[in-house]
Amino acid sequence: MIKTDILIIGAGPTGLFTVFEAGLLKLKCHLIDALPQPGGQCSEIYPKKPIYDIPAYPEILAGDLTHKLMEQCKQFEPGFTLGERAETIDKQEDGTFIVTTNKGTKHHAPVVAIAGGLGSFEPRKPQIHNINEYEDVGVEYIIKDPEVYRNKKVIIAGGGDSALDWSIFLSDVAKSVTLVHRRNEFRGHLDSVEKVQELKNAGKINLITPAEVVGLLGADKVTGVVVKESDDIHLDKEYELECDHFIPLFGLSPKLGPIANWGLEIEKNAIKVDNSLDYQTNIPGVFAIGDVNTYPGKLKLILCGFHEATLMCQSAYQIINPGKRYVMKYTTVSGVDGFDGTRKEAPKAVVKKIE
Amino acid sequence: MIKTDILIIGAGPTGLFTVFEAGLLKLKCHLIDALPQPGGQCSEIYPKKPIYDIPAYPEILAGDLTHKLMEQCKQFEPGFTLGERAETIDKQEDGTFIVTTNKGTKHHAPVVAIAGGLGSFEPRKPQIHNINEYEDVGVEYIIKDPEVYRNKKVIIAGGGDSALDWSIFLSDVAKSVTLVHRRNEFRGHLDSVEKVQELKNAGKINLITPAEVVGLLGADKVTGVVVKESDDIHLDKEYELECDHFIPLFGLSPKLGPIANWGLEIEKNAIKVDNSLDYQTNIPGVFAIGDVNTYPGKLKLILCGFHEATLMCQSAYQIINPGKRYVMKYTTVSGVDGFDGTRKEAPKAVVKKIE
Ligand SMILES: Cc1cc2nc3c(=O)[nH]c(=O)nc-3n(C[C@H](O)[C@H](O)[C@H](O)COP(=O)(O)OP(=O)(O)OC[C@H]3O[C@@H](n4cnc5c(N)ncnc54)[C@H](O)[C@@H]3O)c2cc1C
Ligand SMILES: Cc1cc2nc3c(=O)[nH]c(=O)nc-3n(C[C@H](O)[C@H](O)[C@H](O)COP(=O)(O)OP(=O)(O)OC[C@H]3O[C@@H](n4cnc5c(N)ncnc54)[C@H](O)[C@@H]3O)c2cc1C
Repeated sequence: MIKTDILIIGAGPTGLFTVFEAGLLKLKCHLIDALPQPGGQCSEIYPKKPIYDIPAYPEILAGDLTHKLMEQCKQFEPGFTLGERAETIDKQEDGTFIVTTNKGTKHHAPVVAIAGGLGSFEPRKPQIHNINEYEDVGVEYIIKDPEVYRNKKVIIAGGGDSALDWSIFLSDVAKSVTLVHRRNEFRGHLDSVEKVQELKNAGKINLITPAEVVGLLGADKVTGVVVKESDDIHLDKEYELECDHFIPLFGLSPKLGPIANWGLEIEKNAIKVDNSLDYQTNIPGVFAIGDVNTYPGKLKLILCGFHEATLMCQSAYQIINPGKRYVMKYTTVSGVDGFDGTRKEAPKAVVKKIE
Repeated sequence: MIKTDILIIGAGPTGLFTVFEAGLLKLKCHLIDALPQPGGQCSEIYPKKPIYDIPAYPEILAGDLTHKLMEQCKQFEPGFTLGERAETIDKQEDGTFIVTTNKGTKHHAPVVAIAGGLGSFEPRKPQIHNINEYEDVGVEYIIKDPEVYRNKKVIIAGGGDSALDWSIFLSDVAKSVTLVHRRNEFRGHLDSVEKVQELKNAGKINLITPAEVVGLLGADKVTGVVVKESDDIHLDKEYELECDHFIPLFGLSPKLGPIANWGLEIEKNAIKVDNSLDYQTNIPGVFAIGDVNTYPGKLKLILCGFHEATLMCQSAYQIINPGKRYVMKYTTVSGVDGFDGTRKEAPKAVVKKIE
């Protein structure tokens, strides 16, 4: 059982900044995310795109924003349960909560902060009737550790940035990389498209277009796929192709998912909160911050999640330290004491005689 | 008469970010500030100190924060009335407002955003009975343009960073610089104290300590001061010292000031707002954002001002464009069109054949 002060569901920008604000109040955080990496939408959907409305950043790439937030909260040593979806919440007699993931990992905390954005990111799956049977035994929708593919025969399907970028990356790692896409045209960064063209010309990526993977082969793990290739002139032709891994990268789409059944008031596919105070939900001790919440005037913007997280932490402090008064101090004035023993503080003014 | 869409009182971080958010909605802003430079508390009180809780900045100097915010909003061409205090507000029959400064400058706008922080910064004045008579004719509390002092005889009073830093700066500009302080010890950055010691040793700054300026001389402008020098052994001695300018730098302290009489609901020296929607005050069309406002759970933090400004702009849009629906767009997706003709946008994905 993982124990923490604030259990944060969702490691997007809102969840990450919560770790920092909680840390200032000496509260420890643990984050659960369905994705294998932190950053939420910023990392999953548009890491290489610039955002222009982060205050005091005239421009910042979404991926860099994630890195900066990780760096800022690092000293408060957050715990992470990545690649797992928070599935159930159980209120204990003492008012604390146990949250269990789809893989059975249990987390125990007096305060739960749902920073789940548009929901947990779930892969879009190709329509192959028996694909479920091969999941984790040769079929992966998300690449968690590229080393898994070293010297393996890999087939990637998809026509966007993920499919392009992973084909490029794995062309150096895998024994062979085959990229299958149902059109001849790819949609992505110019760089990536050109690089794949280059690697194809060099014989380092096999390209099959327009084509689809329509079947999976193998007794207890994937040993090959059935490809259906079509073109304007000839009829479709189907054939088998040997491989160790089939990786369909058709994008991930967020689904509010299990959280919708936690007894929270839901409106417009989001969790209703009390924005006149602390973004608490109808369940005391459970807060919802960032894109996942809704209230009159709500804007689904990153900077709003930062504010909501900050105010929420004040109430979390009260729940965790009942009766104790917290006097807010400016970081500039009091410095920042990390749980890792580090200390950041402004250089002190000197009082010195001039003679 | 200066006309604008949103008249912002206070050019601190909150006011500056309002310009950006309003700009995204194609609303134009004009800012009034009592200080000669933008940045509010960050520029006036602690420009060289690091802040640690600006989201995604593990550390940023307060002065750099101001520069970044100025850079971010520049493309929306804000107007500035600096060095003037907003004094009165008059609601017009059509619901718009005219705000007049202590120097008589008039501003006309349908929406007023008070981002006045802890109030307008007013200098702490030394107790010299007739000092008011010499203001702007040889006595200045704030240095707006250092060129005014070229080849002049300047006496600076004070023992903190401003007095130290301006003495250093003007030692290269003025004919002579005399620094008067009531103690032998100065309080400031080590660098500054050491530099003044050096310039004193080199004969470039005259230092008189412990001493005070107790009188002003001159018919219609300052021609000298009366210095009272004291030490442990001798009795106090008073003498006259010739000069063209006397600059007491005893710090500025914020005073809510005239805004307190505008008919706004005041609580804890701050303006009550409706935090359950858009930070509007009891006067429709007048909003209060940042440190200047109060509501249940309010934290006087920079990041909170950013959120408040952003939500406020949505309501301002409705007031200025009645009945028009605004659909929020992500800056990443739609880019940012400056009023100055610039356009920032994410590099577009290409759709390209690989053959
Ligand atoms: C293309 C694009 C451009 C954008 N541009 C801008 C912009 O310019 N400015 C701006 O301010 N915003 C922009 N946004 C919106 C911005 O990305 C979101 O506001 C922000 O990501 C919200 O952060 P969050 O932390 O609340 O949620 P998210 O970033 O959505 O993160 C939530 C995380 O929670 C996880 N999660 C949810 N439920 C569960 C569960 N049950 N178990 C485990 N994990 C779960 C998800 O996997 C996800 O990683 C843009 C969004 C997109 C898609
Ligand atoms: C030493 C110190 C350290 C701090 N450290 C931190 C920190 O680490 N993190 C953090 O988040 N915050 C910190 N703060 C607080 C932070 O500076 C404020 O929250 C922030 O400046 C508020 O911004 P604002 O724009 O709302 O108001 P301000 O910065 O106060 O700006 C308001 C402006 O309005 C002007 N004004 C007011 N009334 C009038 C009028 N009638 N006419 C004309 N002009 C007027 C004032 O002159 C002023 O320039 C610190 C403050 C201090 C003093």
